[in-house]
Amino acid sequence: MTYEELYRQIRHKQSYLCVGLDTDIRKIPAHLHAEPDPVFAFNRQIIDATAEFAVAYKPNIAFYEAQGPRGWESLRKTLAYIPETCFTIADAKRGDIGNTSDLYARTFFDPTAAGLDFDSVTVAPYMGHDSVTPFLTYEGKWVILLALTSNPGSEDFQLLATGPQPLFERVIQTAQTWADHNQLMFVVGATQAGQIGRIRQLAPRHFLLVPGVGAQGGSLAEVSRYGLNDHGGLLVNASRSILYASDGRDFARRAADEAQKLQREMAGFLSYEL
Amino acid sequence: MTYEELYRQIRHKQSYLCVGLDTDIRKIPAHLHAEPDPVFAFNRQIIDATAEFAVAYKPNIAFYEAQGPRGWESLRKTLAYIPETCFTIADAKRGDIGNTSDLYARTFFDPTAAGLDFDSVTVAPYMGHDSVTPFLTYEGKWVILLALTSNPGSEDFQLLATGPQPLFERVIQTAQTWADHNQLMFVVGATQAGQIGRIRQLAPRHFLLVPGVGAQGGSLAEVSRYGLNDHGGLLVNASRSILYASDGRDFARRAADEAQKLQREMAGFLSYEL
Repeated sequence: MTYEELYRQIRHKQSYLCVGLDTDIRKIPAHLHAEPDPVFAFNRQIIDATAEFAVAYKPNIAFYEAQGPRGWESLRKTLAYIPETCFTIADAKRGDIGNTSDLYARTFFDPTAAGLDFDSVTVAPYMGHDSVTPFLTYEGKWVILLALTSNPGSEDFQLLATGPQPLFERVIQTAQTWADHNQLMFVVGATQAGQIGRIRQLAPRHFLLVPGVGAQGGSLAEVSRYGLNDHGGLLVNASRSILYASDGRDFARRAADEAQKLQREMAGFLSYEL
Repeated sequence: MTYEELYRQIRHKQSYLCVGLDTDIRKIPAHLHAEPDPVFAFNRQIIDATAEFAVAYKPNIAFYEAQGPRGWESLRKTLAYIPETCFTIADAKRGDIGNTSDLYARTFFDPTAAGLDFDSVTVAPYMGHDSVTPFLTYEGKWVILLALTSNPGSEDFQLLATGPQPLFERVIQTAQTWADHNQLMFVVGATQAGQIGRIRQLAPRHFLLVPGVGAQGGSLAEVSRYGLNDHGGLLVNASRSILYASDGRDFARRAADEAQKLQREMAGFLSYEL
């Protein structure tokens, strides 16, 4: 999906909601365990219930890996089920030396490898340019680079001063020498809303993927106020607050309610911006 | 495996060789493609041929992931085939917020999850303490944290000055507040031999996992000179130079020759140290 296509979806749906498919088999409603693939059965209903309110879906790969080979099968089916009009993110936080990042890129972008065809993958920056650029050789595919994350540990290294700037700002600036806003986004935690204005200055056109709204406590209003640009420029992720809104048979309807609530708030913020 | 057990294996085998099982299905000898699981068939013969010379095996997870579910099956069988006396490393370079790192830890350490029971996993430090500590809750299991890697991109961020020190030194120092040498190792590329002496000062007792000897051009003599301590303290990895020493039917014998050559050099360096 291109930058302009993503923008069109945001305008069309009046939403920049990304639904995080962090599907934990220990947390899904009990009645789904009778299904042949409970994780996929859950995801399918979540996708059906939320697709009109969301422009993106982000399976966190850890949740599938922890199930072994059958988890990868659930992931493949889930990805195939997501509507073409939605942007897809493999939240994998990969990154290795060049010849290995090549393989990670094949895994997530080349359907003849592992049966997956994501639009994007999240990548950790620590190993530098040759750990990131192999993902950029796929036309129309994106790297979403960790910059400033939503967790307490973000303070350990991301905020260290490197000369006049914290490390995460160096990451944002250096990475822009590798790719432009058509192939590169940044992860910025919603719990770091105070920094989003500064990041918007450093990367005016880039999309920011913002986790941490909901269970982690970030504010959608704050993130939107500082982060929106004239193409939307945000994908705000919610996972647990949508997926586990109910643990009963009404889980999909309740997920839809939560997604719709966020979409309506987003429509309000977009009306000021677009 | 404990620190002392690993040391005993090093003394016993007179080796600190780690064989990197970066098994690329496109590079294995043609005759193996007739096997039901060519990757496992290759790995089994490599392990049989090298086990007397190696103290550790390190499958790089990217190579298995890129095969989808059957790759995870090859990985599971490979891990089960590695002798108990060898230390096993999931070279996965994972790292995510706490509840997600929990799942990555389960994937690699809890055999009831994905069928895997590695001794250790490589972890990227960018997301800080809560991305690393979930791996440390498993008794007898290890985190091998990226510090200074062997690739060209290591210069982009790892060498940035953060106050008086480069970032990778801060990583080494900060991580020692999370775990001691009984559960924590560091990745230091062999191409960075000039830095190994300094790292040995910062982390005198910790094992260093050193990739980059062989195909990437690092010097075993240099690494050993600056890196060995009174418990060995090094695991030096070779992958491509062993795995692909021959692409014919003699691949396993040629792999054994390469492994033995490295082991003999190592025995020489150990005789000065232990």
